[in-house]
Amino acid sequence: MNLVSSRSEVQPFRVMQMLDLVHRRRRDGHDTIMLCAGQPATGAPKPALAAAEQGLRDSTLGYTEVIGDRDLREEVARWHSETYGVDTSADNVVITTGSSGGFVASFLAVLDHGDTVALSCPGYPAYRNILESLGARIVDLVCDESTRFQPTAAMLEALPETDRPRAVIVTSPGNPSGTIIDPAELARIAKWCEDNDAVLISDEDYHGMSFGRPLATARQFSDRAIVVGTLSKYFSMTGWRVGWLILPDELISPVENLQASLALCAPAISQVAGRAAFSAEARTELDGHVETYRAARQVLLDELPEIGFTRFAAPDGGLYLWLDVSHVTDDSEAWCHELVDEIGVAFAPGVDFDPIDGHHWVRLSLCAPEDETREACRRLGGYVNR
Amino acid sequence: MNLVSSRSEVQPFRVMQMLDLVHRRRRDGHDTIMLCAGQPATGAPKPALAAAEQGLRDSTLGYTEVIGDRDLREEVARWHSETYGVDTSADNVVITTGSSGGFVASFLAVLDHGDTVALSCPGYPAYRNILESLGARIVDLVCDESTRFQPTAAMLEALPETDRPRAVIVTSPGNPSGTIIDPAELARIAKWCEDNDAVLISDEDYHGMSFGRPLATARQFSDRAIVVGTLSKYFSMTGWRVGWLILPDELISPVENLQASLALCAPAISQVAGRAAFSAEARTELDGHVETYRAARQVLLDELPEIGFTRFAAPDGGLYLWLDVSHVTDDSEAWCHELVDEIGVAFAPGVDFDPIDGHHWVRLSLCAPEDETREACRRLGGYVNR
Repeated sequence: MNLVSSRSEVQPFRVMQMLDLVHRRRRDGHDTIMLCAGQPATGAPKPALAAAEQGLRDSTLGYTEVIGDRDLREEVARWHSETYGVDTSADNVVITTGSSGGFVASFLAVLDHGDTVALSCPGYPAYRNILESLGARIVDLVCDESTRFQPTAAMLEALPETDRPRAVIVTSPGNPSGTIIDPAELARIAKWCEDNDAVLISDEDYHGMSFGRPLATARQFSDRAIVVGTLSKYFSMTGWRVGWLILPDELISPVENLQASLALCAPAISQVAGRAAFSAEARTELDGHVETYRAARQVLLDELPEIGFTRFAAPDGGLYLWLDVSHVTDDSEAWCHELVDEIGVAFAPGVDFDPIDGHHWVRLSLCAPEDETREACRRLGGYVNR
Repeated sequence: MNLVSSRSEVQPFRVMQMLDLVHRRRRDGHDTIMLCAGQPATGAPKPALAAAEQGLRDSTLGYTEVIGDRDLREEVARWHSETYGVDTSADNVVITTGSSGGFVASFLAVLDHGDTVALSCPGYPAYRNILESLGARIVDLVCDESTRFQPTAAMLEALPETDRPRAVIVTSPGNPSGTIIDPAELARIAKWCEDNDAVLISDEDYHGMSFGRPLATARQFSDRAIVVGTLSKYFSMTGWRVGWLILPDELISPVENLQASLALCAPAISQVAGRAAFSAEARTELDGHVETYRAARQVLLDELPEIGFTRFAAPDGGLYLWLDVSHVTDDSEAWCHELVDEIGVAFAPGVDFDPIDGHHWVRLSLCAPEDETREACRRLGGYVNR
């Protein structure tokens, strides 16, 4: 008997495999500079840790409400409203188990088996993997320098009738590109979606982290859009597994019903901690982290051309730099493993993010401290120019 | 534009709605006895809380390995091996975000769209809801007193050819029935599955809690079975959202790949805490909780007949008693809401668990302290015999 379903034959998620490899190497005492994962080197902000410690004492930490603790939903709504000048109600916020939980629930809520979804390529691999396992059909919006590695309304408009999507996913700041979609373009994409009966899913996981460009939420342009957010990135609470959806009214109840069965609720202690991550004190700490990402970015922008890597997406925000390595390899996955073994530097293989040309690209994270990032460049330069 | 997919039209999970209602009532200062949820009134065992507090200080709590912290996987494997005299390796254990995460990942790993799954009825509603949202076809194995509310190999054998399942889910101790499948019968079910190319998924969430009957794991009878487990029940760590799968070798890699995209990893702090829940000190504390469930069970077995409720499944283990209320209502959901409003006692409506006859049944939890359980019976008796 074959136990394995055909739909479970998703691509391995190589970024996470690389992260597991780094964990194993570090456990075995091998020094490794981690530029593979979108994971802040810092932990949760101090007020969140203090709240968690208090929560351990004060609460039995049972199931929370399915849609999340009301207090946390209110913090998310307030943050979103204040940051973007929109009127987001806690009633439209559903707390999920990381943004991962939000993707699964929102995909099931809007997509039927066989529906088409438009994705930018390069893009976050979990969208593709989840969607394929749920029976969606994927249309790639191939992006390069000409549109700063981001999709446009014009690309959607140019799709043949047979590829018209039921849903469009955008990610700004991008993963892996780090580029930000201009607000005017995001407005055009939102309008195209409304005009063409497509659900816009705006992955705003990297919000809070711009190095200068203006950053808009899809909810500024459409109350039909789904916004996905997380405590993992700006809020530096990766392993706590808390995210959220900001939903159009008619999706609240379907997502609640799905989430009740798919997840029951997000982790209770993480919700207690997460609430405190929105405090002014925490935000000051977190804004400091963004300055370290900015510094790491500058190291990469300065050093990479010096050692022969001249083609990349310069990050506007978020946690990544997307780097063309085609002059040194035709197999980015093998090359990444080689780098870990030879120089103890971990990048994310581009094949995760771009099924077409990813063997020529890698993703670098801005999360390592400035000195480690500089050391990684030094080792890389020494290795490729040996 | 209709935003909602047809497959998202799953049943609401009324147990969780009832739990949310209890949370809201308690927040508003209304005394409510909670017999609706399978949620221990106790929190995590002390060693788990101490480990969590230490973890807050020692770790940045980033992503763990996709399949979970090795130390926790080893604890699960050791516990499983020692409890059942089987040889379970940590290599076959994948830590999931609650058993909920384990269900979604394992269903996707073994089922293609349109595959048939056999479920006991009454049974846990999330199976049905998740499966329907993933496009599975459900065959009900209708259970009553004649088989102690549990499915049998004979029922599977009696299915018409068109209803032969790709997977069979069993839950022992049962939810909502609380009854245990005899080891010999579980062996017959496991053999039937092997002989008929069906994947046996054994939900062992309520293991650790037997009131006397022998309790077997499916892995005693088949290394082709998937075992699902959790820290939520015996280990009293509901809101921490940690569960596990014990997998046949060939499913490890597909589940890892799926989990990487569906969830990234289970919550880090919960895994740190969870590891300590397997310690001897924690187990002593947890075994004490089982005695309180036993005491609550005895109160219900003594009191319910006294106040006119004479037909029920007497719990062999786990956290529930399944109660026929057909002499007082034809609408268990409305009746449960009535009870909350009128006497401040929350039961779980049977319609969640049994789409056929659930309007005549409710599920009572054994999790409330003995005195509260007695008080709930007193109020119920006063109400129905008013």
